[in-house]
Amino acid sequence: MQSFTRVLPPVRRVAVAGGTHGNEMSGVCLARHWLGSGRAELQRPHIEVEPFLANTRAVERCVRYIDADLNRMFTDKNLRQPKTENLLYEVWRAQQINETYGPIGSESAYDMLLDMHNTTSNMGISLVLTSSSDHLSLHMAQFLQRKLHPIPCNAVLVEHPTLAYFHLRQVAKHALSIEIGPQPQGVARADITEHMRRSIAYCLDFMHKFNSGMELPASKLDVHRIDGYIDYPRDSEGHITAIIHPAFQVFAL
Amino acid sequence: MQSFTRVLPPVRRVAVAGGTHGNEMSGVCLARHWLGSGRAELQRPHIEVEPFLANTRAVERCVRYIDADLNRMFTDKNLRQPKTENLLYEVWRAQQINETYGPIGSESAYDMLLDMHNTTSNMGISLVLTSSSDHLSLHMAQFLQRKLHPIPCNAVLVEHPTLAYFHLRQVAKHALSIEIGPQPQGVARADITEHMRRSIAYCLDFMHKFNSGMELPASKLDVHRIDGYIDYPRDSEGHITAIIHPAFQVFAL
Ligand SMILES: [Zn+2]
Ligand SMILES: [Zn+2]
Repeated sequence: MQSFTRVLPPVRRVAVAGGTHGNEMSGVCLARHWLGSGRAELQRPHIEVEPFLANTRAVERCVRYIDADLNRMFTDKNLRQPKTENLLYEVWRAQQINETYGPIGSESAYDMLLDMHNTTSNMGISLVLTSSSDHLSLHMAQFLQRKLHPIPCNAVLVEHPTLAYFHLRQVAKHALSIEIGPQPQGVARADITEHMRRSIAYCLDFMHKFNSGMELPASKLDVHRIDGYIDYPRDSEGHITAIIHPAFQVFAL
Repeated sequence: MQSFTRVLPPVRRVAVAGGTHGNEMSGVCLARHWLGSGRAELQRPHIEVEPFLANTRAVERCVRYIDADLNRMFTDKNLRQPKTENLLYEVWRAQQINETYGPIGSESAYDMLLDMHNTTSNMGISLVLTSSSDHLSLHMAQFLQRKLHPIPCNAVLVEHPTLAYFHLRQVAKHALSIEIGPQPQGVARADITEHMRRSIAYCLDFMHKFNSGMELPASKLDVHRIDGYIDYPRDSEGHITAIIHPAFQVFAL
């Protein structure tokens, strides 16, 4: 009986976003590199790979965003707003990205979107997944964990059943955000950026293997979910009164 | 013969500035701590020590400055500008600071100004001196080097014979800027901030010892001077095309 086997179509078009947050430099530097002399690095047989800078104006100014966080702008409402002059810059950019690599939920959308992020936190590599039913991305995350071992590489599942079309990565049919830290804002660390470069290369290798007939047997993947937020201790004026202990700040990749 | 011996008056009033650049968090956190519950840390017999936040508005917004770099605003011309509404924020703040802890070059100026800075560069501790004839500060730098050993602690002499009254630290009769890195902008690292705290404590210890009659025998101090600036390699659009090698990025304090 084959009822538990699913056949997924091959991956033909992949978009790789850097600068969704304009001051996260690993993705910015790599997207620029791939848009220029480094293009050949992304080549895999029978896959069209398109690197791009997502929040281009924020990248120019080396800030997270101009008017609003681009990575929260992919709502139905925003994507349908008329293109008037007082549209927020990021809403306008979300519409452009949706038109180029989507539209969301359509047959013509790209097969895969890889979105590159950094964090200042000492988190190592986080693989951020949007849907527990995106089996292709779940298997790709597992493949990455195996390839990157022993580097800490946790899967994080950010599933909003009622808040669909929120993140940039949801424009395509399948998606994975890769977030690596610690890296200061506006700074490119060679080690962190090299880990991002390897991670993207493994993703493309995975898609090529998948297209070539590699089977993905049923398996388990440990995922982290957001359970709540814990703020720093603060004084009566709201200023942070604690510092992360040095033992937790050592860079461990 | 005593002609090479100078007698300097004791140090009675010391100002300790944090947040001259509003996103350099070691100084911001320490100044807040000392202005609040940590005040006793700065006490030394017969010395009045005043911590303060220099660029208060930039500190609130966690940016380097609002209109212009405060640490370049202490020119004669700026300090004499009439207080009109369209005065740059930092010129206005420079005038306030000069009135409170100066005026520059006057008998009523504070005896010592310690100015706390961070850098994102992996420089360790830099002791920035303004004048090769400020013997008290030169001896204090040497005392710090001895106390902080084996932590790298270089003296940097930024002497502008024609560009006096430029930096905040020049408001007082004697001055030392302490710059510690690497620390990201807007982030307080516990280890870096602890080094700043120790450095300021040693400065105050030195002034107390000096007031108590400690002699400062003639000696030598190696200083670094700015010889020129070397930019990163850039592409035709001006984007940086190189990353600091990981071997130079390891945090060594
Ligand atoms: Zn991000
Ligand atoms: Zn500074």
